[in-house]
Amino acid sequence: MLGNVLVAQSGGPSMVINQSLVGIILAARGNPGVGRILGARHGIQGILDESFADLRKETPARLEAVAATPSSALGSVRRKPTDADCAAILQVMRKRGIKWFFYIGGNDSAETVHILGEYAKAAGVEIVCFHVPKTIDNDLRVCDHTPGYGSAARFVACALMGDDLDNRALGGVKIDVIMGRHAGFLTAASALARVNPGDGPHLIYLPERPFSPAQFVKDVQAVVKQHGRCVVAVSEGIADKKGRLIAAQFLHEVDSHGNAQLSGSGALGDALADLVKEKTGIKRVRADTFGYLQRSFPGVASAVDQEEARKVGIAAFESAASGKWRSGSIAIRRKQGRKYAVAFDVVPLVSVAKETRSMPDAFIAENGHDVTDAFIAYARPLVGELPVKAMLKGMEG
Amino acid sequence: MLGNVLVAQSGGPSMVINQSLVGIILAARGNPGVGRILGARHGIQGILDESFADLRKETPARLEAVAATPSSALGSVRRKPTDADCAAILQVMRKRGIKWFFYIGGNDSAETVHILGEYAKAAGVEIVCFHVPKTIDNDLRVCDHTPGYGSAARFVACALMGDDLDNRALGGVKIDVIMGRHAGFLTAASALARVNPGDGPHLIYLPERPFSPAQFVKDVQAVVKQHGRCVVAVSEGIADKKGRLIAAQFLHEVDSHGNAQLSGSGALGDALADLVKEKTGIKRVRADTFGYLQRSFPGVASAVDQEEARKVGIAAFESAASGKWRSGSIAIRRKQGRKYAVAFDVVPLVSVAKETRSMPDAFIAENGHDVTDAFIAYARPLVGELPVKAMLKGMEG
Repeated sequence: MLGNVLVAQSGGPSMVINQSLVGIILAARGNPGVGRILGARHGIQGILDESFADLRKETPARLEAVAATPSSALGSVRRKPTDADCAAILQVMRKRGIKWFFYIGGNDSAETVHILGEYAKAAGVEIVCFHVPKTIDNDLRVCDHTPGYGSAARFVACALMGDDLDNRALGGVKIDVIMGRHAGFLTAASALARVNPGDGPHLIYLPERPFSPAQFVKDVQAVVKQHGRCVVAVSEGIADKKGRLIAAQFLHEVDSHGNAQLSGSGALGDALADLVKEKTGIKRVRADTFGYLQRSFPGVASAVDQEEARKVGIAAFESAASGKWRSGSIAIRRKQGRKYAVAFDVVPLVSVAKETRSMPDAFIAENGHDVTDAFIAYARPLVGELPVKAMLKGMEG
Repeated sequence: MLGNVLVAQSGGPSMVINQSLVGIILAARGNPGVGRILGARHGIQGILDESFADLRKETPARLEAVAATPSSALGSVRRKPTDADCAAILQVMRKRGIKWFFYIGGNDSAETVHILGEYAKAAGVEIVCFHVPKTIDNDLRVCDHTPGYGSAARFVACALMGDDLDNRALGGVKIDVIMGRHAGFLTAASALARVNPGDGPHLIYLPERPFSPAQFVKDVQAVVKQHGRCVVAVSEGIADKKGRLIAAQFLHEVDSHGNAQLSGSGALGDALADLVKEKTGIKRVRADTFGYLQRSFPGVASAVDQEEARKVGIAAFESAASGKWRSGSIAIRRKQGRKYAVAFDVVPLVSVAKETRSMPDAFIAENGHDVTDAFIAYARPLVGELPVKAMLKGMEG
């Protein structure tokens, strides 16, 4: 008897989340034990609403084009299932003959899969539940890195490269606010923009280190004294030594997973720019908040990230179909050796669900406002080669 | 006797301004009548400070790499010369044996060249002064379009394509604030992101039409009613029917050409998002302000724009060296015919200096919040092919 596949996407989109989706679809299509392949629209909301796309009807050419397209092709949702939701979802899954369920997302999505899996187990329902990792924040525990991170990091590195050149032309202080609620990995990727001595970003502030507005102003003044200008990369999630968000006074919203809305507002950047203007008297101080472009901009995805996101989807389907696991997630592990290489392992849902990880200390400079060479070595292969950046010989130094 | 060349860059950088610079340098190097080729650092500031780069020393390979690098390789400045400046600049030029002067920039830079040229004429000094057009705003009079616009427009079109996909996944209202002080050309380019029916941007607000906050809220509500979501592209320069900037309450700075600082702040987007939240009760309302990324992001420049920027630089040098003109600027004209083709004409400085142009009425939809097919036909060849964008068949409609 054939089993049916159900797949959905959840949480914030990324540039390569559809690579994982297409990996699952193509692997499922290649398995003779698979009957229907359904895509729930907007995550678990689509299961509750019984709103499904028939993923057998998509042509291979269209699937490849979708894989190369940013954002979540099935739509997304931010919703943590209640007990009532779980009961309703399981009922729909049984009715639809679902044998394998795949949920592509971050730690909140892993938690959703875990809750559903435990509920199914208690109810004696046999559905294999897999989480498929995706997060531009790179904050899933156990994983070396996550699909989505390399491409968002590439956007940030490119943006800082261009912005540093822009600042070099007109001078002053430029502050760039970068996504990352608790983990500084994405902000840290700004360091990849540096090619020559004196290149920005000159200061990098991460959520992993307490942020002091007074020290920040001093740091900026020191850089301006040395270089005559200053480019700052700062995480939206910076907090003071008591753990209170610097952006807190501008926040309005909290989602059902308890996360504050940080993106989609330029308030933090503007506040930091005003602070520098007021305290230093420097006239040209500007702030940009990169916002949703970091996860959705087409045409800048990292080649390695695209390939790995596809393989993570394939690994999730094959692991689920092997019958060896009742549930799990796929973790990318980096192999030892000089050449970059990875393996895809099945890990328990509890090892990635709910809690996140931060940047390890070895990646953060002692001064608290930069990254280490170890981080550069870690991130470079995920991001790939950046566009050309050259200066006139007569403008160096 | 050999004559020396002096070149400089001014105003806001662009992704292709170095193509024009390298066009001038290579054309000058190919002319046996040219002696030294000097680049002034940071526009006329570098002339006043006698801070020059020797552009004969750059290798061809480095020049090509610089041409592909965004922002102004010689540095830039925003400064209108006073009479005292003009006297000092002319003295430096005479001392350095400058026969041809090239200033790459927008309308303010053309005005600077005009002021200098008139001053030189009155002083009986023989220096050929050429303005080389550059502006992402596309607001120079006489020109069909300006170098820099196609690439910035390509960034905006890509950004809106990705952002519309992002909004499709998670819903709500998304407001994107785009550069353009008086002219809506760059904001209008957001329309190129549309591929399928229902694609955003659903509303496009230009500085050329009066902006009413009350009507804006109504427009958003109507789109949300039809599509269940809404993506808005809005110019930073929108103004009310009395011509007062909507962003005016958030402005602090005015430069020496009398222009208010609009970019480098997220205030307008945040204010519009708050307005929509408050008046409609829609919970998920986000704003991004694209900021300086629009003019400096590496790797997304339009191929046509790069080529034309190079040719404009070459045309400026060749026109100046021909001895036919004492001063001038280069205008790109579009040839009649089905296939896109352009010519490069010399025009008087006064025809591009100081005043700018706006979007013609034929490019603006009757409803005041969209563009026409005529605009799409105008802009498409300047921007080039956009990255792949595909939806699942099961998610259409």
